[in-house]
Amino acid sequence: MSGSGSAGTPRLPGTMVYTYLGPEGTFTEAALLQVPGADQAVRIPSASVSSALEKVRSGHANAAVVPIENSVEGGVSATLDAISVGQPLRILREILVPITFVLAVRPGMELADIRRVSTHSHAWAQCRDWAEQNIPHAEYLPASSTAAAAVGLQDPESGFDAAICAPLVASRLGLNVIARDIGDVADAVTRFILISLPGLLPEPTGADKTTVVIPLPEDRPGALMEILEHFSTRGVNLSRIESRPTGAFLGDYFFSIDADGHVSDARVADALKGLHRVSPGLRFLGSYPRADHRRAEVPPHTSDEAFEAADQWLASLIDG
Amino acid sequence: MSGSGSAGTPRLPGTMVYTYLGPEGTFTEAALLQVPGADQAVRIPSASVSSALEKVRSGHANAAVVPIENSVEGGVSATLDAISVGQPLRILREILVPITFVLAVRPGMELADIRRVSTHSHAWAQCRDWAEQNIPHAEYLPASSTAAAAVGLQDPESGFDAAICAPLVASRLGLNVIARDIGDVADAVTRFILISLPGLLPEPTGADKTTVVIPLPEDRPGALMEILEHFSTRGVNLSRIESRPTGAFLGDYFFSIDADGHVSDARVADALKGLHRVSPGLRFLGSYPRADHRRAEVPPHTSDEAFEAADQWLASLIDG
Amino acid sequence: MSGSGSAGTPRLPGTMVYTYLGPEGTFTEAALLQVPGADQAVRIPSASVSSALEKVRSGHANAAVVPIENSVEGGVSATLDAISVGQPLRILREILVPITFVLAVRPGMELADIRRVSTHSHAWAQCRDWAEQNIPHAEYLPASSTAAAAVGLQDPESGFDAAICAPLVASRLGLNVIARDIGDVADAVTRFILISLPGLLPEPTGADKTTVVIPLPEDRPGALMEILEHFSTRGVNLSRIESRPTGAFLGDYFFSIDADGHVSDARVADALKGLHRVSPGLRFLGSYPRADHRRAEVPPHTSDEAFEAADQWLASLIDG
Amino acid sequence: MSGSGSAGTPRLPGTMVYTYLGPEGTFTEAALLQVPGADQAVRIPSASVSSALEKVRSGHANAAVVPIENSVEGGVSATLDAISVGQPLRILREILVPITFVLAVRPGMELADIRRVSTHSHAWAQCRDWAEQNIPHAEYLPASSTAAAAVGLQDPESGFDAAICAPLVASRLGLNVIARDIGDVADAVTRFILISLPGLLPEPTGADKTTVVIPLPEDRPGALMEILEHFSTRGVNLSRIESRPTGAFLGDYFFSIDADGHVSDARVADALKGLHRVSPGLRFLGSYPRADHRRAEVPPHTSDEAFEAADQWLASLIDG
Repeated sequence: MSGSGSAGTPRLPGTMVYTYLGPEGTFTEAALLQVPGADQAVRIPSASVSSALEKVRSGHANAAVVPIENSVEGGVSATLDAISVGQPLRILREILVPITFVLAVRPGMELADIRRVSTHSHAWAQCRDWAEQNIPHAEYLPASSTAAAAVGLQDPESGFDAAICAPLVASRLGLNVIARDIGDVADAVTRFILISLPGLLPEPTGADKTTVVIPLPEDRPGALMEILEHFSTRGVNLSRIESRPTGAFLGDYFFSIDADGHVSDARVADALKGLHRVSPGLRFLGSYPRADHRRAEVPPHTSDEAFEAADQWLASLIDG
Repeated sequence: MSGSGSAGTPRLPGTMVYTYLGPEGTFTEAALLQVPGADQAVRIPSASVSSALEKVRSGHANAAVVPIENSVEGGVSATLDAISVGQPLRILREILVPITFVLAVRPGMELADIRRVSTHSHAWAQCRDWAEQNIPHAEYLPASSTAAAAVGLQDPESGFDAAICAPLVASRLGLNVIARDIGDVADAVTRFILISLPGLLPEPTGADKTTVVIPLPEDRPGALMEILEHFSTRGVNLSRIESRPTGAFLGDYFFSIDADGHVSDARVADALKGLHRVSPGLRFLGSYPRADHRRAEVPPHTSDEAFEAADQWLASLIDG
Repeated sequence: MSGSGSAGTPRLPGTMVYTYLGPEGTFTEAALLQVPGADQAVRIPSASVSSALEKVRSGHANAAVVPIENSVEGGVSATLDAISVGQPLRILREILVPITFVLAVRPGMELADIRRVSTHSHAWAQCRDWAEQNIPHAEYLPASSTAAAAVGLQDPESGFDAAICAPLVASRLGLNVIARDIGDVADAVTRFILISLPGLLPEPTGADKTTVVIPLPEDRPGALMEILEHFSTRGVNLSRIESRPTGAFLGDYFFSIDADGHVSDARVADALKGLHRVSPGLRFLGSYPRADHRRAEVPPHTSDEAFEAADQWLASLIDG
Repeated sequence: MSGSGSAGTPRLPGTMVYTYLGPEGTFTEAALLQVPGADQAVRIPSASVSSALEKVRSGHANAAVVPIENSVEGGVSATLDAISVGQPLRILREILVPITFVLAVRPGMELADIRRVSTHSHAWAQCRDWAEQNIPHAEYLPASSTAAAAVGLQDPESGFDAAICAPLVASRLGLNVIARDIGDVADAVTRFILISLPGLLPEPTGADKTTVVIPLPEDRPGALMEILEHFSTRGVNLSRIESRPTGAFLGDYFFSIDADGHVSDARVADALKGLHRVSPGLRFLGSYPRADHRRAEVPPHTSDEAFEAADQWLASLIDG
């Protein structure tokens, strides 16, 4: 990894180029803006997760930010699948974004005036309670993203009077915001990842995460447990697991897993080696700092020291 | 379950009312149309998974069809979360839909004429290879669904010349289709579920699936394995597992799991009882026929007969 | 179990008859004398574990005491094997005996006079340190039991001057004891079991043990774990496990296991039912009070209440 | 290991000295005589397993043969315990001995004349069926070993007319054998081990066994399974497991385990390293050829090649 302040992103000559699941002003762009230096870099919206990753794979962008969990504007399944096949990629960091919605209206309007409101359907679902209580008579018009709704509000022909969107885009466009924090779940956050081509790994921080994709070696009771035992016997906790059907044929699966720890931790390295034996098609997607900085609890018997002691003990047996 | 042809859906007085993740003409409506009798029933599109389920909970619809896997138009995470909390619901069946895309154009247009094409961003991602080879110069305009793009094609003001959509909506609207099967993955299918209020369970067929939601009792290495052991020790195979963060606080998890078999199978019942002990907040979401009719392989030691024999043996010990 | 004071032993008409691994005066007889009423009962020594159990099976004795762990005078393997095959038997209680050795000599002798000392070879092994320091020049003559050595000391022709034996036999024979507690391990104890024909089970006390014999269903990595999972998934701790080859052919195995708890505890019953499914040749050898009265720690999720709650929950699912 | 023909035994200057659980003529000596060169070596009987091992530890013998399973003349528990503590020892090979008994009588006697028969109590137990049918009126006199009974037959004062013993001692003493193969179990065999001080390990043969002693790290449900997972996750089968109480205090345990494979096999080495982490007091007792030459079945994913491939894969991740 370069020593620059660009948080693990490869330093290409000239300006850094980032892409993200667009359009401009989405929560995904808000995630990207948390990456140090991204506010000064080139930021290109992509129409899909696939096209964002393609820009990285083809060298048209240094890195991409895409959703990995609970995204308001979708794309999670697409991310899981797109990083699991094709040219290898690496996750450099994860980014947590608070999900807060604002209601922006055309100049001069008030709540009681709103007849039509637009936003992404997921965002609408997350503001339904507020909407029923505050704008019960407003009709809903779907938009392809919260940002698209915000932009549409500036278009006299768009046909709606209000947009539910992220604070970022509202302030950037200078919209007239008349309600804030209108989401039904307080303190909601969602998670994004920064993806690049393989390069030097981010340094371990003691509060790291490792992401892997593991094809199920055999479809029978217990096969998943045999995979997970490789984590549990090394005391490695999992923070995410998802089975995904492999492409066209429902019935074959792979697992997308986030594990606590860094591949340079002996317990994680040992677990990965065990997984490689049972499922050699395993794909390593990176070791990177946790956004919440929560340090892994490492039982003494899975510390690097315990691994080193075991190695020495075994060597002593064979040397006689 | 009623004896009607309505496939496990409670028979309410009068006409059946179904809702689904809309708008009309999406793959989700195509899924609904596989439900026997649905073509004669009332079908109401919902703007979100949440609102679809709300119609069921409030009695405004008898049942809802929503995506559970790999949906072209999103909603999977929303479904997983929405059925896991709130008023209990039950899955009555799963429905597989082949994902095939068509290209519809304004009357008289040919491939070479297309300057702008619209569809849902996930659908666009799945047709990118075809698009690059066949309409490389076409600009992409996102739509909130494939059906919305199709409908927009009929609007002279929509600003695009072509839409990528499902065959269903194209034929229903009488659109001019100039290319078929343009998806990059051959034989792609996706999975939807039919959801209702709790009632009689669908009868076991020998090729069933049981869906449960299990809060992680304790966040430490091995806790997930202890959950999964309850399936593997009863020889119950899993076909889907996903961890989901519980609401606002990232770090607490529940698992959404599909297991082979029906709760009236002794091995499934026994596994569920074991899970209830370690995680009493467990939620049972239904036992229902598999769409692919693949029968579970039941090892002799997990057959109903083996459970019955074990019960009798144990009773004989205590009776002396 | 009868209400008599005979500790779980079936009350036959007339006097109770016990047998034990003899001869008289061994640690096994000392174990028998801990059984309430045994001092007033008929006590018949048997020449082997097999013959002791045969007396029980044929009705010539109501119960037998035989060693199950660490016996000074052998017989443990014989016990494990003999109770695992043939006509079913039941363990009614376990008995702990402190292993303390005394040195008895011919009248008038002192340590320095001893030229030859006799005892069972296992007892000799356990007093070697003392012997080397206190009677370094004494020659060792093996005896078939510690009691046989004690008896031989009274025979002028036996050819030895001293015997290492149990305090019981020394006091019973009125021998001249010149050293006590000469074993090399302080506080050593060993374990015996009281065996009878199947009848009413001893009542659960909260500090019980259950013994089972489980044929290995399949000889491959993981088969033993699948057996043990049935205990661990029910929170049942094991206090003893031994693999034993099955008869003539080395390579097939059964496991002899002591588990904490009583078959009338729901968690133990459930584990046994699970084991019966995977290994229907399982043999139940009894549930009986622990000699050390140590109560099992029962996690809440494996309490009888948790099992009852799970049963009710499952019934509610199926009732709809 | 030395290149001599002495089967893995350290070559000391001069003649090899072996000891064994005596007296002369037991099955244990028969086991020793299977060791190449042992018939030309010095063979010293020991009165107990402990004293045999002490001769090895003190350098008075190069190696010892002691019983490890099902021995007719006892000593198995003593062996398990004695090799598990104190100065480290190593198992160099295992030896299988067919257990066949003969009946030797004083010159001129026939079956019908026998009034008293002597042998070790375990041997008597194994010939009871034959005895009841053929010498039903004979009284049994215990001996400290089958060989002691055989020797006693030559003593006019011993008080018995017949001895049940091993063919070895009968032919060596030139006894008058009138019945052969009188054991109740056909084809019985038992297992002995050859023990020495640590030195070079026997070479792997592809049909090897590794013996370890593992203190239970924590006494709770699942702790044993965590130990065994280290074997099963590496595809290592176990052929023997025994829990043993640790010394004076019943309730703390260690496990004595035989695993298939040699410590120079990657899967065995990896399992041992895993065990060392959870239970650093682990004791390695040797890797040595199986007496039955049965080769381990090694699934591809636990082959040395799979381990090597996993090591290389992991190194490639970290190198970037």
